[in-house]
Amino acid sequence: MDASEFRRRGREMVDYIADYIEGIEGRQVYPSVEPGYLRPLIPSCAPQEPDAYEDIMKDVEKVIMPGVTHWHSPRFFAYFPTASSYPAMLADMLCGAIGCIGFSWAASPACTELETVMLDWLGKMLRLPEAFLAEKGGAGGGVIQGSASEATLMALLAARSRATRRLQAARPGLTEAAVMEKLVAYASDQAHCSVERAALIGGVKFKAIPSDGKFAMRASALQEALQQDKAAGLVPFFVVATLGTTPCCSFDHLSEVGPLCNWEDLWLHVDAAYAGSAFICPEFRHLLDGVEFADSFNFNPHKWLLVNFDCSAMWVRKRADLTGAFKLDPVYLRHGHQDSGLITDYRHWQLPLGRRFRSLKMWFVFRLYGVTGLQAHIRKHVQLAREFEAAVQRDPRFEICAEVTLGLVCFRLKGSNKLNEDLLDRINGAKEIHLVPCHLRDKFVLRFAICSRAAESAHVQQAWAHIQALATALLGAGQE
Amino acid sequence: MDASEFRRRGREMVDYIADYIEGIEGRQVYPSVEPGYLRPLIPSCAPQEPDAYEDIMKDVEKVIMPGVTHWHSPRFFAYFPTASSYPAMLADMLCGAIGCIGFSWAASPACTELETVMLDWLGKMLRLPEAFLAEKGGAGGGVIQGSASEATLMALLAARSRATRRLQAARPGLTEAAVMEKLVAYASDQAHCSVERAALIGGVKFKAIPSDGKFAMRASALQEALQQDKAAGLVPFFVVATLGTTPCCSFDHLSEVGPLCNWEDLWLHVDAAYAGSAFICPEFRHLLDGVEFADSFNFNPHKWLLVNFDCSAMWVRKRADLTGAFKLDPVYLRHGHQDSGLITDYRHWQLPLGRRFRSLKMWFVFRLYGVTGLQAHIRKHVQLAREFEAAVQRDPRFEICAEVTLGLVCFRLKGSNKLNEDLLDRINGAKEIHLVPCHLRDKFVLRFAICSRAAESAHVQQAWAHIQALATALLGAGQE
Repeated sequence: MDASEFRRRGREMVDYIADYIEGIEGRQVYPSVEPGYLRPLIPSCAPQEPDAYEDIMKDVEKVIMPGVTHWHSPRFFAYFPTASSYPAMLADMLCGAIGCIGFSWAASPACTELETVMLDWLGKMLRLPEAFLAEKGGAGGGVIQGSASEATLMALLAARSRATRRLQAARPGLTEAAVMEKLVAYASDQAHCSVERAALIGGVKFKAIPSDGKFAMRASALQEALQQDKAAGLVPFFVVATLGTTPCCSFDHLSEVGPLCNWEDLWLHVDAAYAGSAFICPEFRHLLDGVEFADSFNFNPHKWLLVNFDCSAMWVRKRADLTGAFKLDPVYLRHGHQDSGLITDYRHWQLPLGRRFRSLKMWFVFRLYGVTGLQAHIRKHVQLAREFEAAVQRDPRFEICAEVTLGLVCFRLKGSNKLNEDLLDRINGAKEIHLVPCHLRDKFVLRFAICSRAAESAHVQQAWAHIQALATALLGAGQE
Repeated sequence: MDASEFRRRGREMVDYIADYIEGIEGRQVYPSVEPGYLRPLIPSCAPQEPDAYEDIMKDVEKVIMPGVTHWHSPRFFAYFPTASSYPAMLADMLCGAIGCIGFSWAASPACTELETVMLDWLGKMLRLPEAFLAEKGGAGGGVIQGSASEATLMALLAARSRATRRLQAARPGLTEAAVMEKLVAYASDQAHCSVERAALIGGVKFKAIPSDGKFAMRASALQEALQQDKAAGLVPFFVVATLGTTPCCSFDHLSEVGPLCNWEDLWLHVDAAYAGSAFICPEFRHLLDGVEFADSFNFNPHKWLLVNFDCSAMWVRKRADLTGAFKLDPVYLRHGHQDSGLITDYRHWQLPLGRRFRSLKMWFVFRLYGVTGLQAHIRKHVQLAREFEAAVQRDPRFEICAEVTLGLVCFRLKGSNKLNEDLLDRINGAKEIHLVPCHLRDKFVLRFAICSRAAESAHVQQAWAHIQALATALLGAGQE
């Protein structure tokens, strides 16, 4: 394919994309295919000679689309949102064309420098403490990770390295393995599974702290676990506080937990993967209070801030903690400005070596929406969630299962778990809308998350009417 | 931005990209900016109200392009190639529009299933042993990782988990930390730094095996290290064999090392990050001989197979080894087909939870180039490298420093390291072309890697004439 054919096919693809997004509501939100559907539809080997472009685009509709779960449909209320916007897509096209691999400053200075400044822009939107910004020439700064899981893992590894150095300094001769055997990481029992996974990867113990009646971690519960473990000869070193948990969007008490972590000299990582985007609105900023006690903070603009996946923003108070954990500098990656102290080599901040020019997406989105446009997007989703919550509350057959703070509503039929599992089966079986469940303590609960950029009040009302009708049929069937 | 404006701006962006790629040779390959150049060029905060689109595109030329290292310029001969092709860019646009997060089969069946089949297509192009293919319903299969670093880390973690289970089964009561204290990972002293980094992350020891006169790892050297370590009470568990090392593209003796790893029950991971793409050509396939002994194999189509970053292909002989290492299944990620045995949930195969629909890029590229088109791309680069090698050999002032097998030529002026460092400074200072160096033993060496899809004989000849002229000037200055 030469440049002139790319010009033609590119225009066609732009139109295909606009048609897809404009017409997405007409597509069945969750596919009807069965496992293994795709393999018989395409050849078993790559073609020796090129296929025609037209045939590939026909296959997109014939082979791919029937198996797509349409995350951007206004009928999609599952998981959490994943961001999608036209400005981000345009920036991603440019990112692909530049195609630099920005592992060091020299590998493409613009890629590194725009990222540093965009993380400052975003940090200011959130009113993060100045210590986290690179602008003032301090010790902190931001980086784009691929996902919150990677941010959590990087924080845990940096914390492990800091704790190991400290313990070895106090007791020379202590082996790394002897240290790791004693290290314990903590998070609420509502925290994302990636925290426990990070501990497994890092080879350290993990303890889940029982959350309170509002599914939040309190300092008292953490304190109790710390005391028990220290009494048993273990060494607490790392705490993840979650702002906006995955099951029900609950908030750990950061203003309580933070001072305790500082007092006990534990690395505090704040995971606000979903909720973080909301903190750009002054009325939600109080949910971030206590971040001033954190060593690292992370949230995903690729969830709720209109920057397409992947773009997970992470800030650290001391970048040397992150970069010092595993810095290796082979000659083939060295460059003239290496030791100037002026530059950032982001490869030391992350797990992979290579990295795309992802800050272009942030730059395009922030500039083309403006802060007010981004705030409006957040506020609209929160408003829609409140509308759904109010509708649920008006139906006495249902109950709300957790406080609705942002764009997620946890609800269920009053009754058994079996009844609610059946309701969810009917909802997802009908394929009018798509939801996923969670467990809150022993209760099976349905999660209704406002996801699509195109979601409007009418979609929420239609979804609720549909759920009510299915519930009526289910309850009727039960009475027969 | 609404759909109709996206149609307009999308077309403009397609043209901008085509213009950029067509005109890339006219841009200075390595930028002239100094560290910190970008921040003063843009505001210190995101705008409250939206900026005009035209202003953003003006800033792309004014702010971004002056700081870009142009990896796709035919004057770029640094690092290794990173792939760029129009079909991959088109597929990536579609990937962004669908915007699904394919962490499980249910999160978008097409995303998972196309990936499985594409890894089979690619595995067949490489003539991988059938055990690595998913097609036959066996225990193996392939996955797209973000980078070779992540593939190496996943392999090491899976190997650590397998070794820990085995040791704990033999000696119940042995703690995980007690096991980790004894585990040792190995790779050649020419292996990529990501292997040592994976060991640091995984909390296990790492030993570099001295390579032979051709910078290759031999079984005898590995055997010696294994015996020493076992005698010292350590437990060897993981070996990385590199096919196409980063410094000089040397090849470990896989057919020797493989049987030794099998005999000693060590996990053998084969890292062919750069060279792997060449194995689709029958005349280079012999370089992969011995892969039948491997537990896992990885290479980067995003380097040399025209699939834009990121797309790192990894295969495992037993997918349960990978998925069993850290499987955690929270309710909000469970789905109906979860335990059917029919589906793949790729989140268990990788470090992050989220993942893009990256197999679309493979599908578009494989179909629009065909196997013959991909082979032609590889062969052209190898031919250009041989042409450069021959030119170097004709100039008695220079020497070739390692065997030229694929698209990389390691060369230097006969003389001191200082002389060669000066030559490289002059080359990169002139900014006509861009190279990076390496160390081979105690020698400072220049690496000339054929990178750009657009590289032709004329570019190689011009680059060589330029290097010769700078060398003449340097040697003349030395004589004065």
